[in-house]
Amino acid sequence: MSEPISFYFDFSSPYSYLASERIDELAAKYGRKVKWRPVMLGAAFKASGLPLLLSVPLKGEYSKRDIERSARFMDVPYKFPPKFPLATLVAARGYYWLHGQDCGKAREFAHAVFRAYWVDGRDISEAPVVLDIAAKLGIDGDAFTAAIATPEIKERVKQETDAAIAKGMFGAPYIMVDGEPFWGADRLPQIDKWLATGGF
Amino acid sequence: MSEPISFYFDFSSPYSYLASERIDELAAKYGRKVKWRPVMLGAAFKASGLPLLLSVPLKGEYSKRDIERSARFMDVPYKFPPKFPLATLVAARGYYWLHGQDCGKAREFAHAVFRAYWVDGRDISEAPVVLDIAAKLGIDGDAFTAAIATPEIKERVKQETDAAIAKGMFGAPYIMVDGEPFWGADRLPQIDKWLATGGF
Repeated sequence: MSEPISFYFDFSSPYSYLASERIDELAAKYGRKVKWRPVMLGAAFKASGLPLLLSVPLKGEYSKRDIERSARFMDVPYKFPPKFPLATLVAARGYYWLHGQDCGKAREFAHAVFRAYWVDGRDISEAPVVLDIAAKLGIDGDAFTAAIATPEIKERVKQETDAAIAKGMFGAPYIMVDGEPFWGADRLPQIDKWLATGGF
Repeated sequence: MSEPISFYFDFSSPYSYLASERIDELAAKYGRKVKWRPVMLGAAFKASGLPLLLSVPLKGEYSKRDIERSARFMDVPYKFPPKFPLATLVAARGYYWLHGQDCGKAREFAHAVFRAYWVDGRDISEAPVVLDIAAKLGIDGDAFTAAIATPEIKERVKQETDAAIAKGMFGAPYIMVDGEPFWGADRLPQIDKWLATGGF
């Protein structure tokens, strides 16, 4: 029962951002680690045939309101960004490269990317923006740029996305706890109970 | 701030059933009443272009699991029924007729219909089944049958459904609290905080 929790997310997913601000402390309460796994949510939408949430009539409007209210409910700073949706491939590739070097730095980078987009409204689809975020964490820009252009790193993002879809991911955040899938930031209370009781 | 809460639901919606078992006690904590409003969810799906949840690849499988887990999490008896989805027009019409006679009886009837379907697996699309449920509550079958065939009652279901869609309903349960919409049984904790704080 001491397997790490898998946290699948896309940097462009607002509910993923909300979960990212709470999942580590939740897991830590039960002495559990979390594996952060950025994926390409567009590929999952293709697998399930689902449209982008915010583009659905009625549901899209509701969701914009629900995300803002959920952020206040969870006490997480949040501001809907000027550009949405956007591509998150540069950030995801950078994450996996960093993760191979230094797990803790990769986690810091992921938080910084999420917050740059969901609090400061920066365009994280642009490589110079991501490099700037990385630079503030002391990450070398040339090494970053070279790494994310390698076939290994490109393939890694694809592999992780495929693995998540194979585990049933159709939206994000998608969180696996001891084989049990939980979808959405609003399932954190169920995850809490699951960890506390060993399943219910 | 003492307006009743509007609870829009379809008897065939599993998350509506879960919410139905908790919403009255939640509202009562804050001295609030709840207006129960059965609607035709199919019409809302048409308005939003959304497919039936359980028919979506990946998401459908997850949802079946999530509903069962959410029922356990909320401590509500639940069993996925043998026939799903099904038509709920007879039950909805019966509800509005009863509501015109006796609010309390209508609420009892609604609970009984939900439980007949979501606990006992009965086919509530069939008029004889609904009449049997009504009979156990002392409701006259002939009066019920005559009432649900009247144009007024048929129109009422349509009107309530249109009103809910006009308020943004795209799925169920859809709960309006002082003009604020909440979708899903999993938003009851947010409703609790909303009622406690007067909005957040």
